[in-house]
Amino acid sequence: MTTNLTEPRTCSVARTLEIVGEKWALLAVREVFLGNRRFDEMVRKTGAPRDTMTARLKTLVAAGVLERQPVSAHPPRFEYRLTQAGLDLYPVIISLMQWGDRYLTNGEPTPMVLTHSCGHTLGAVTTCSSCGDPILARDVRPTPRREKDNDL
Amino acid sequence: MTTNLTEPRTCSVARTLEIVGEKWALLAVREVFLGNRRFDEMVRKTGAPRDTMTARLKTLVAAGVLERQPVSAHPPRFEYRLTQAGLDLYPVIISLMQWGDRYLTNGEPTPMVLTHSCGHTLGAVTTCSSCGDPILARDVRPTPRREKDNDL
Repeated sequence: MTTNLTEPRTCSVARTLEIVGEKWALLAVREVFLGNRRFDEMVRKTGAPRDTMTARLKTLVAAGVLERQPVSAHPPRFEYRLTQAGLDLYPVIISLMQWGDRYLTNGEPTPMVLTHSCGHTLGAVTTCSSCGDPILARDVRPTPRREKDNDL
Repeated sequence: MTTNLTEPRTCSVARTLEIVGEKWALLAVREVFLGNRRFDEMVRKTGAPRDTMTARLKTLVAAGVLERQPVSAHPPRFEYRLTQAGLDLYPVIISLMQWGDRYLTNGEPTPMVLTHSCGHTLGAVTTCSSCGDPILARDVRPTPRREKDNDL
């Protein structure tokens, strides 16, 4: 009983954070989305220590988020490309960016402008795939599957 | 010149990650979204070390994501509530959960079922607030505001 009571929740958020839930990992993914696919560019644009970036990229490749591809043989050079799983992290990046744009600009202009293919400055809205309404926490009922989590 | 070349990018993603870009911080926020507002519940459901959770909650309160409210005087008890800024992190939580549901369940059912008020199981789609289309990275053009970032 005690074991069950103290066991952490099984959760997709926690699982995802095991892979990308570290600042440098997500910033590396951000750089690849921005087209900076080489190690040195990622280090420069994120400010990550080189050995930390090396470790994070290794984790991201092992997790199937990035692929490491050779782009020249002499000297040996590699680029990191987003897999489909990596591309599917875009909503995570966008939602983090939007929150920072809203709450952490201190009255300054946002650091980056995103322009959508429709021609407008991008504002992201997380919507329900069934009804299309914006998703608010108060409109969502969470139900853990595992019995011991039933008390939430 | 060298300084400019090596300076990390100014970015709302990075700023946001300074506050919530650590596993225990986001899992604490997840618990408050699930209605678990007390320190002991958060520790139990996340598996965070107590001193780490204490530090993360302090950061989240200082950043205006959570509010610490007294709920009894004897013994002194507190609950953590989401501010509007905290509630606005819901898209971050949802997008992390959805990614984990898609890529990290290993063929098992998802750990949690979210039901939207429309009656359907929640599938989240990040859409453009102008045209309503789902946002794909290839449809978005990023433009850094600061001149020295102009090369992306």
